[in-house]
Amino acid sequence: MPNKLDKSFILVALDIHLDHMKTILVLGAGRSATSLITYLLGHASDGWKVRIGDYSLESAREKCPPQSSGEAFQFDIHNESQREQEIARAGIVISMLPARFHPLVATLCVQHSVNLVTASYVSDEMRALDADARKKGVTLLNECGLDPGIDHMSAMKVIDKIRHAGSQLIGFETFTGGLLAPDADQENPWEYKFTWNPRNVVLAGQGIVKFIQEEKSKYIPYHRLFRRTEQVHIPGYGYFEGYANRDSLKYLDVYGLRDIKTMYRGTFRRPGFCRAWNIFVQLGATDDTYEMEAVGDMTHRDFINSFLSYNPSDSVELKLAHYMGVDLDGPEMYRLKWAGMFDDTKIGLDNGTPAQLLEHILKKKWTLKEEDKDMIVMWHKFIYLENGVQKEINSTLIAVGDDSRSTAMSKTVGLPAGIAARLIMEGKIDQPGVQIPIKKEIYDPILQELAELGFNMTEQQVN
Amino acid sequence: MPNKLDKSFILVALDIHLDHMKTILVLGAGRSATSLITYLLGHASDGWKVRIGDYSLESAREKCPPQSSGEAFQFDIHNESQREQEIARAGIVISMLPARFHPLVATLCVQHSVNLVTASYVSDEMRALDADARKKGVTLLNECGLDPGIDHMSAMKVIDKIRHAGSQLIGFETFTGGLLAPDADQENPWEYKFTWNPRNVVLAGQGIVKFIQEEKSKYIPYHRLFRRTEQVHIPGYGYFEGYANRDSLKYLDVYGLRDIKTMYRGTFRRPGFCRAWNIFVQLGATDDTYEMEAVGDMTHRDFINSFLSYNPSDSVELKLAHYMGVDLDGPEMYRLKWAGMFDDTKIGLDNGTPAQLLEHILKKKWTLKEEDKDMIVMWHKFIYLENGVQKEINSTLIAVGDDSRSTAMSKTVGLPAGIAARLIMEGKIDQPGVQIPIKKEIYDPILQELAELGFNMTEQQVN
Repeated sequence: MPNKLDKSFILVALDIHLDHMKTILVLGAGRSATSLITYLLGHASDGWKVRIGDYSLESAREKCPPQSSGEAFQFDIHNESQREQEIARAGIVISMLPARFHPLVATLCVQHSVNLVTASYVSDEMRALDADARKKGVTLLNECGLDPGIDHMSAMKVIDKIRHAGSQLIGFETFTGGLLAPDADQENPWEYKFTWNPRNVVLAGQGIVKFIQEEKSKYIPYHRLFRRTEQVHIPGYGYFEGYANRDSLKYLDVYGLRDIKTMYRGTFRRPGFCRAWNIFVQLGATDDTYEMEAVGDMTHRDFINSFLSYNPSDSVELKLAHYMGVDLDGPEMYRLKWAGMFDDTKIGLDNGTPAQLLEHILKKKWTLKEEDKDMIVMWHKFIYLENGVQKEINSTLIAVGDDSRSTAMSKTVGLPAGIAARLIMEGKIDQPGVQIPIKKEIYDPILQELAELGFNMTEQQVN
Repeated sequence: MPNKLDKSFILVALDIHLDHMKTILVLGAGRSATSLITYLLGHASDGWKVRIGDYSLESAREKCPPQSSGEAFQFDIHNESQREQEIARAGIVISMLPARFHPLVATLCVQHSVNLVTASYVSDEMRALDADARKKGVTLLNECGLDPGIDHMSAMKVIDKIRHAGSQLIGFETFTGGLLAPDADQENPWEYKFTWNPRNVVLAGQGIVKFIQEEKSKYIPYHRLFRRTEQVHIPGYGYFEGYANRDSLKYLDVYGLRDIKTMYRGTFRRPGFCRAWNIFVQLGATDDTYEMEAVGDMTHRDFINSFLSYNPSDSVELKLAHYMGVDLDGPEMYRLKWAGMFDDTKIGLDNGTPAQLLEHILKKKWTLKEEDKDMIVMWHKFIYLENGVQKEINSTLIAVGDDSRSTAMSKTVGLPAGIAARLIMEGKIDQPGVQIPIKKEIYDPILQELAELGFNMTEQQVN
C-alpha cells in the first residue's frame, strides 16, 4: 500500500499525464490553419488545451482570441530542443507546417508516443516510420485535408459500398477545384483567384501526366495538358472543366483498384480558364528553371514580350494573338488583359524565374478581397457493373466560404484534420501506424461529423 | 665527355624520345573518327606513328588497313595503367571518346606534357586545367571539329576582318546542319537521316532557348522551338529552315561580342522538317524523363496512340491530325507515315522512355544506306556598320559526303582535329593552355589546310 507521500506523488504525476493527454499542439498557423484552429478552440469545453505555434508569433496570436482556451507561442522547427519539448508534452500534434518538415515531426511523435495528423501526402520518409509507429501504438494520420483528404474518404465510402453490394467498379474519375463562388467578383473573367499556395497553382501540372483509359496507358505532356480538358456538368452549378493531375496511376494501389479500366484524377476550373492559362504555358511563362535577365526594369508587358518574336512595329497583343492562334477579341485575350498582362506597370521584383514573375503579377489581381467568397467543388464519377449492367454514381461536394479569412478552402482542409485529431484523442479512431483515411474505421466518423458541420457529399445514382 | 657506353645510351634515349614525339594517339575509333584516321594515316610519310585505340579492337582495326602505318589496339579508358602508359608515350592525343572522359585524358596529358585535341565543348573540369597546362607548355585544344570547330574558326575569321577594318559588328547569326545531299534517297520526305548521335538528335532543343534580338533577351520554351524557325536561302542550294540552339548567349563572351545587338545560333533542317518534328514534341514523344508501360508489346502505332485520347472508333491518323490541327493529307502526316509511325510493327524494345522508343523507330528509316550521301551546310550572317552604313556578309560552307562511311559529317568533324594535331606536332600551332580555335594563330593555318582539302567557306558581300 502506498503511503501518503507516495499517493500525492501519484496524483501529481497523473495530473501531468492528463494535462499531457489533453494538449493539442498545432504547428503552423498560416492561412490554411484558420478554420482548423477555430474548430479546435470551439471544442475547448471538452477540457482540452490548444497550443498554437508558428514562426510568426503574430500569426499564431491572430488565430487565438484572448478569451479563448488557446495558447499562442513562437515556434521554430529548426530549434531542436523546443520542437522536442513541445512535441513530448502534447497529446496529439497537428502539423500544418510545409510538408518537408513532417518526417521530422513524425519521428519525434513516435519517440514520445504522441499521435500526429497532417493534411499532406505520405512521403517515403513518413512511410518508413510505419513499423515503429505500430510498435508504439502511435497513429500517424496523413492526407487528411481536402485533396488529399475528403477525396479519399468520400471516394472510398462509395467504392466500399459498391464492393459490399457485390458489384464491380470499372471506372473512377475524380476532380477537385478551389474556385471563386458564383457571386464573388463578377467582373473577373477567370472566375478564379488564389485560395491556396499561389506557387503551386502556377507550377501545377508540370512533368508528365499518366492515366489509364479503358485499360490503355495514356500520357499527356505538360504543354498539352490545358488543351486536354474534360467537361463536367453539375446540376445547379453549371459546367466545369478539368485537367488531369499527374499521379492518377499511383491511386490504383492506394484504393485497391488494380483491375479498373479507367482512372482519372483532375483539377476543376471554370470553362475557359484552361485555354487562357495555356497561353502562359505555351509562352514558357510558367517555367521555373532559369532566371530571366533585367527583371528590375521589366513591366508586365515586357514580360509577355520577352517570349514573343522581335518586331517593334507590331503590338504585343497582335504578336501574342497571332502566335497563339487566338482572336484579338477572344476570351483568352480578354482574360490576359483583365489580369493586367499588357500593362506598362513594373513587375516589382529584382529577379526571378518566369514562374516567380508570373505569380507576382497574378497576385495583383488574384488575391482575395476581404469580402470575396471562394468555393470548393469536388466531384466523383463511379462506373460499375451490377449483375453485368453498367451503372453510374456521381458524388458531389460544394462548399462556399464566408469571406477571405474563413474560406471554403481553409475549412475543407482544416476541419478533417481537426475532427480526426479529436476522434483520435477520444479514442474513437485507433489505427496505429502510418495511415491515410481510406479505412472505414477512419473515414466513417470523420465524414459523419463533416456532414453535421454542413460538408457532405451528395450522391446521385445517374443510371 | 661521355664514353662509348654513355653515347650509345644517349642515342637510345634520343630514339625513344623521338619515337614518343612522333606518336599520334587516337582514342576512340567510332564512326566519327573515320576521316580523321584516314587523314592521319595519309600523312604517315611524315614519319609519324598513329596508334588507334578503341574499346572494340575490331572498330580500331577496321579504320587501320594492314599496309598502313597505323597500329590498332584494344583500349579501355577505365584501365588506369593502360591509359596512363599510352598517354605518357604519345606525342599528341586526339580524343574522340565521349566528352565526359576528356577531363581524365587531359589531366594525364598535362601530367606527362602531352598535347591534346578534342572536338568537344570545354567543360568546367577542362577549363580548370588551364593554369597547369600553361605552366607545362601543354596545349589542350578543344571544340576543334565542325560545330563546335569550323563554326568558331570561320566566324572569327570574318569577325576579325570586320574589326580590323574598323567596322562594328552589330548582328551575328549562325546555323549548321547535318542533312542529306540533294540527290540522296529521293523518296524521303524529311530529306534527313541520322548522321550524328541519334539520341542527341531526338533530344535536341530540350530546355530553354535564350538569344538576343536588337538588344532584347528572348526566350523560347522547347515546346514552341520547332514553330519558331528562321528561313534562309542559300543560292544554288535552296531554302533551309533553322531552329535556335539553347546557348546563343554564352558565345557573346567567347567571341568578344558583348556589344552586339542580335546573336542567334541555330540548326538547319530542310523546310517542313520542323513542323513535322514538332508533332513528336507536341505529343510528348521526345520526353526522356519516364519509362513507358507495356513496351514489349507496343507497335509503332500504339506508341503514337498512347499520346492520344481514347476513342477506339476513330483512327489514330484522324485523332492525331485533329489534335495537332494539321490536314490528314498534309506534309506532316506524309512524313510521319513515311517514317512508319502508323505501322502495326512491333517497336522491338522491352522498355524505354518515349525518346528512346522514338529513336529506335526512326532508326529503321533514318539510318544511312551504303550509298547515301550526307551534306553539311554551315551559314553565317554578319551585320556590321562601316562608317555608319549597314553592311552584310554571308559565309557558307557546303560539304557532301562520299557514301555512308566517308560522310561529310565525319570529314568536317575529324579533319579540323587531325589538321590541328599535325600543326601542333610540327610546332606551327604553339598556344599552351586550354584553347578553342578562336585565335588567328590557331584558326588561320587550320582553315587554310581545310580549304586545300576542299572545305572552304564562301564569303559573299550581300550589301
